[in-house]
Amino acid sequence: MNIQTLKGFRDFLPAEAKKRQYVINTLQTVFESYGFEPLETPALEYEEILTGKYGEEGDKLMYRFTDNGGRRVAMRYDQTVPLARVVAQYQNQLPFPFKRYQIQPVWRADNTQKGRFREFLQCDADIVGSSSPMSDTEIIAVAAKSMDKLGFEEKYTIIINDRDIFIDIGKIVREKFPNTLLDQLSLFFAITQSLDKFIKFGKEKVIEELTEKKLTNEEALFIVDIVAKKEQTDRLKKIIDKLSLLGIKDNSYVFRPTLARGLNYYTGVIFEIEVKEYVTGSVCGGGRYDNLIGMFAGRQIPAVGFAFGFDRIIEAMEEQNLFPADLPGQTTVLVTVFNLEFVDASMEVASRLREVPVGTSLRSNSINVELWLDANVKMEKQLKYADQKGIPYVVIIGPEEKEKKVVTLRNMKTREQKQVSVGQAIEQLKTP
Amino acid sequence: MNIQTLKGFRDFLPAEAKKRQYVINTLQTVFESYGFEPLETPALEYEEILTGKYGEEGDKLMYRFTDNGGRRVAMRYDQTVPLARVVAQYQNQLPFPFKRYQIQPVWRADNTQKGRFREFLQCDADIVGSSSPMSDTEIIAVAAKSMDKLGFEEKYTIIINDRDIFIDIGKIVREKFPNTLLDQLSLFFAITQSLDKFIKFGKEKVIEELTEKKLTNEEALFIVDIVAKKEQTDRLKKIIDKLSLLGIKDNSYVFRPTLARGLNYYTGVIFEIEVKEYVTGSVCGGGRYDNLIGMFAGRQIPAVGFAFGFDRIIEAMEEQNLFPADLPGQTTVLVTVFNLEFVDASMEVASRLREVPVGTSLRSNSINVELWLDANVKMEKQLKYADQKGIPYVVIIGPEEKEKKVVTLRNMKTREQKQVSVGQAIEQLKTP
Repeated sequence: MNIQTLKGFRDFLPAEAKKRQYVINTLQTVFESYGFEPLETPALEYEEILTGKYGEEGDKLMYRFTDNGGRRVAMRYDQTVPLARVVAQYQNQLPFPFKRYQIQPVWRADNTQKGRFREFLQCDADIVGSSSPMSDTEIIAVAAKSMDKLGFEEKYTIIINDRDIFIDIGKIVREKFPNTLLDQLSLFFAITQSLDKFIKFGKEKVIEELTEKKLTNEEALFIVDIVAKKEQTDRLKKIIDKLSLLGIKDNSYVFRPTLARGLNYYTGVIFEIEVKEYVTGSVCGGGRYDNLIGMFAGRQIPAVGFAFGFDRIIEAMEEQNLFPADLPGQTTVLVTVFNLEFVDASMEVASRLREVPVGTSLRSNSINVELWLDANVKMEKQLKYADQKGIPYVVIIGPEEKEKKVVTLRNMKTREQKQVSVGQAIEQLKTP
Repeated sequence: MNIQTLKGFRDFLPAEAKKRQYVINTLQTVFESYGFEPLETPALEYEEILTGKYGEEGDKLMYRFTDNGGRRVAMRYDQTVPLARVVAQYQNQLPFPFKRYQIQPVWRADNTQKGRFREFLQCDADIVGSSSPMSDTEIIAVAAKSMDKLGFEEKYTIIINDRDIFIDIGKIVREKFPNTLLDQLSLFFAITQSLDKFIKFGKEKVIEELTEKKLTNEEALFIVDIVAKKEQTDRLKKIIDKLSLLGIKDNSYVFRPTLARGLNYYTGVIFEIEVKEYVTGSVCGGGRYDNLIGMFAGRQIPAVGFAFGFDRIIEAMEEQNLFPADLPGQTTVLVTVFNLEFVDASMEVASRLREVPVGTSLRSNSINVELWLDANVKMEKQLKYADQKGIPYVVIIGPEEKEKKVVTLRNMKTREQKQVSVGQAIEQLKTP
């Protein structure tokens, strides 16, 4: 038998799992500080709820099967369709606007050669049931504050645009060139798909793409020229103007008329977050999508929201050293066991250390204390174990310490050790 | 189309989801304070990893299917077999003892009529690679401290036993009755399965069961008599004696020689936690199981651990009102919007309130502030929304407040409201 993780799937050993927990807790804290509340939906849904909602590609990549009871079921593919189901199913008991966040894994049988995983965490926050521009402002602010709280302050830019810019450009082009070969919709998509490449590949590439899509060179040049001069829509001004009232700094966002994303999905403001010097791509995307959430309720329900790319956030934070050294969940100290005679003393000290209340990290509120669990293991091996687990301090209680009523506190990084009272050790370990 | 949750599965709307988060965070905090670290494994495994590991019943209830790539896969059924796989797969890089906790959903296509769910959370903590009785003591202590931290202090009992008690009884019975019809193994199972009913159904029921299992009345009576007189094994004494050193109170645990659980699984100490006045059943079970974790590594790897019954914990906490009123994630205040003219003022106050650092709850470290997101909605409707969401305070900023440079702070429970400075409002909201 092959003892291995399923292809495209991942185990997260403690070092990785702690980082993930830290990001999740940080995002939860920010989302909740804006009044967003958690929602959980099941891993499996009736197949008919999910199929046809993500295009042909989605149906192909979806994990679907027949369960033991003969039901056709499908695994969670995103969190928007389940949200739409929840909104329809509980519409009489949910408060509106319904501000929810959801952080759960989704499954897609994607091509692993593209560096994609088949199980990954989605982190969504959405406001359902409000079409007010204040909601758009708030959604952008929550995304910005999340980035700040994760440590990206001054290191990210929120790129903002309005889908109407593209519709508007389409109109202008058709007025100027009434004989253009593209109808209104095709023109819209040609423009959006091509302009999206403006920043990355430059003006020439966009013109090349546009002419490949049946536009004349003259038309393409004209499009590229007017888009550069495009100003914010009135709607966008309203949204962006209020960001400073929510404490978002001017230099953390920018209007970019060439930003295009999922424009058959979004209906108003669209935005992405780029991290400076992180080249893989945007770490967050969002916008207003007023035509989706009502799909099961049978009426239009406005919505605005965003999703963080969890794996990219982790990767960008690693690249930029944004994880704190004392991650919540990290063990602070290993209390060693000198030999059988000192088991009780070590147990008592470990227990005392654990009782100390501390309130620094996001989640922990005590010193994390590992007690060595064997009476017959050499001190050297215990120290090696602490090193291996990255535990920064070690406590030793042997004959000398017992007689002097002290403990030896060893700093595993500097290799320095000193005899101190338990009280002194506590002071040191509280602020490591 | 039927817009509904898949049969046997559950949505957790915010009120429920917040309770779950609270329990998860509390357990994580306790586990980590003992040096346990998080592990995550995938929802799907190669089928051959899981099948045959949970008996016929398990194979029947497992969600299994062929994925798009033709692989036979199965959904996580418990967290012990994935742990065994991880231990085998990463044995050269994991530190031993490997102390990990894991809190993830598992899936079982169980009969929903029994009140069982097909997706439920498992909360496991295990020590892998140590056979020392200190590990057994610690595992029991971690379970006890978890109960304390959840608010069950003085309201639970840890029932402890040693699997050897049953082996011993079997030996004594066969010595006393050499002609008994049962061989050693059958006798062992007859005894364990029957004695487990001692507390719930009484002595007569046990005797009745034993006689149904081919034991004579005399043999059954003898068994019931000697088990009542059974004393702790030396091993158990060693484990239990040290509990007080880890701060576990004498009245929170008891030795019960009739406790039997999964005895083909466990190899040493076994325990369960009962909550007083909660009748559904035990909320936690655990013990030493030295023959399982090595199944993929091809050698014996000792292990001891426990699992909390997450749904039962939630149910017991609800019955006994153990959830705090201000759950982490609960919104503390709704900042209303008087009308279009006062949007900016409300946004600014909401933003100021969010900036206040607080350090009381397990996870939050700011006041959770919801801003009303519309400029044209009657105050009455906004207050109703706060009520519906259980938000305890509301802030109102209208013409009078603006002129006086104050805000109106309304207590939604008492319906009292007063005009205060933003600073005074902050003081009130910090300790609600």
